[in-house]
Amino acid sequence: MSMGGVSLPLFFFFLATISATSHGFSMDIRHLFLATISATSHGFSMDIPHQIHLLRPKAGSRNNDVPGLSCLSWRLGVETNNVIGWATVPEKCAGYVGHYMLGQQYRMDSEVVANEAILYAQSLKLAGDGKNIWVFDIDETSLSNLPYYAKNGFGVKPYNPTLFNEWVNTGKAPPLPESLKLYKKLLLLGIKIVFLTGRPEDQRNVTEANLKHAGFDTWEKLILKGSSHSGETAVVYKSSERKKLEMKGYRIIGNIGDQWSDLLGTNAGNRTFKLPDPMYYIG
Amino acid sequence: MSMGGVSLPLFFFFLATISATSHGFSMDIRHLFLATISATSHGFSMDIPHQIHLLRPKAGSRNNDVPGLSCLSWRLGVETNNVIGWATVPEKCAGYVGHYMLGQQYRMDSEVVANEAILYAQSLKLAGDGKNIWVFDIDETSLSNLPYYAKNGFGVKPYNPTLFNEWVNTGKAPPLPESLKLYKKLLLLGIKIVFLTGRPEDQRNVTEANLKHAGFDTWEKLILKGSSHSGETAVVYKSSERKKLEMKGYRIIGNIGDQWSDLLGTNAGNRTFKLPDPMYYIG
Repeated sequence: MSMGGVSLPLFFFFLATISATSHGFSMDIRHLFLATISATSHGFSMDIPHQIHLLRPKAGSRNNDVPGLSCLSWRLGVETNNVIGWATVPEKCAGYVGHYMLGQQYRMDSEVVANEAILYAQSLKLAGDGKNIWVFDIDETSLSNLPYYAKNGFGVKPYNPTLFNEWVNTGKAPPLPESLKLYKKLLLLGIKIVFLTGRPEDQRNVTEANLKHAGFDTWEKLILKGSSHSGETAVVYKSSERKKLEMKGYRIIGNIGDQWSDLLGTNAGNRTFKLPDPMYYIG
Repeated sequence: MSMGGVSLPLFFFFLATISATSHGFSMDIRHLFLATISATSHGFSMDIPHQIHLLRPKAGSRNNDVPGLSCLSWRLGVETNNVIGWATVPEKCAGYVGHYMLGQQYRMDSEVVANEAILYAQSLKLAGDGKNIWVFDIDETSLSNLPYYAKNGFGVKPYNPTLFNEWVNTGKAPPLPESLKLYKKLLLLGIKIVFLTGRPEDQRNVTEANLKHAGFDTWEKLILKGSSHSGETAVVYKSSERKKLEMKGYRIIGNIGDQWSDLLGTNAGNRTFKLPDPMYYIG
């Protein structure tokens, strides 16, 4: 296998200042980042040999030194439910996940999901009996906790329920714009919305206020996790609540969430949509 | 396909200011983005944009002009089963998918999946009764058709069964190295292998020879799609074959494939693993 000469000099200068005043997050990043990468015999070896047969065992672990690449693989593993049960974002992916969440890729990834969901919903021939519902998870699906996570390490630090609940209780979570767009389209199509969240019952008032403030004006039901479900996994709790909905005659034509535990189990819906979330895992 | 030399000088200057007022994030982004990209003897371009962005509705469709980003979103949509039922890779993602498949990212993405599967298998306390099996799909899971797809447009062209079967009948498909590594580890753990493929019965001999040639020396069963399943979707066919296995007393402790139709349906296995495949979709 011959290696064509590949050189990838990369000069990269990056300066960013992010500041937020009266809102929950502040972040100040000043990077002067200068990197020159040239890969001739190793590393970012995008070598395209004369014979296409790149499926050879890799020479070593050097490839893992390329930050974006391996963290992208980790993120893909998370999003496809291959990487499960993790407690925190890998330390080495801290910067990667932060930039992903604040950057354009997260937005575009979310947009693809919302657009597919809209195309699907528009393709349906729906009975006009008011029984068609779409289940929305709340955190990182309808409302975004990015202002909180931007201040608290983007999932690299262990989950801190005290701090997180303080944030939730401010009621200031913004909407995910792509989900809000989907929500509005669904309402226009006559589909009713059910919010199904792992947030506890005692956050009902602040959650209602936050949803309304974020633009989610109306819903058929807002289901929070009651004490009867305490100790249940998200899959078990959400499956049982979805089953109750179907027993009441609702048809779950769609279901959207950022965790696979929103979408797996029973009564999952005719079609499910997985939004990205590389910051935390709920089983 | 040969590539003499690729040089990718990239000069990137980025300045962003984000400010949030009382609610809804307002943002001011200024960037000076200068990129010089040159690719000799090959027609691809690679833009590396960067933008720090906080949940602001997008101004327009401009983002879709950035090839790498939107094709990455499309690929993520495919891998998460959000984008389904597609016949061919979007034209604009032709170069992206080709480079992905031939480059390091595909390898690393596959490695994450195989490593997770190995960790899972090693964590199990297995009965030593010889009834533990792991189901492997074949194409783009055990064997790679990349040499074929590299010559035939990486999924951009419509599926051509005549040409594809000619390739299959050469019996020259290489193994996916990460899957072969998983396969060998599973055998060492005393787990038996069942290959379950949509390839038809009349490709049994060439498939057996190809598997052996590629290093998959042994298996408990090799299940090809018999004529009794003709017309069935992959989900239906594979579910029914897995059900038969479980009725015979086998325990499907793992199941790996490149298509969600390998992993959905009934009797899917205690845990499933999704390998990447942005080249084609089987429902």
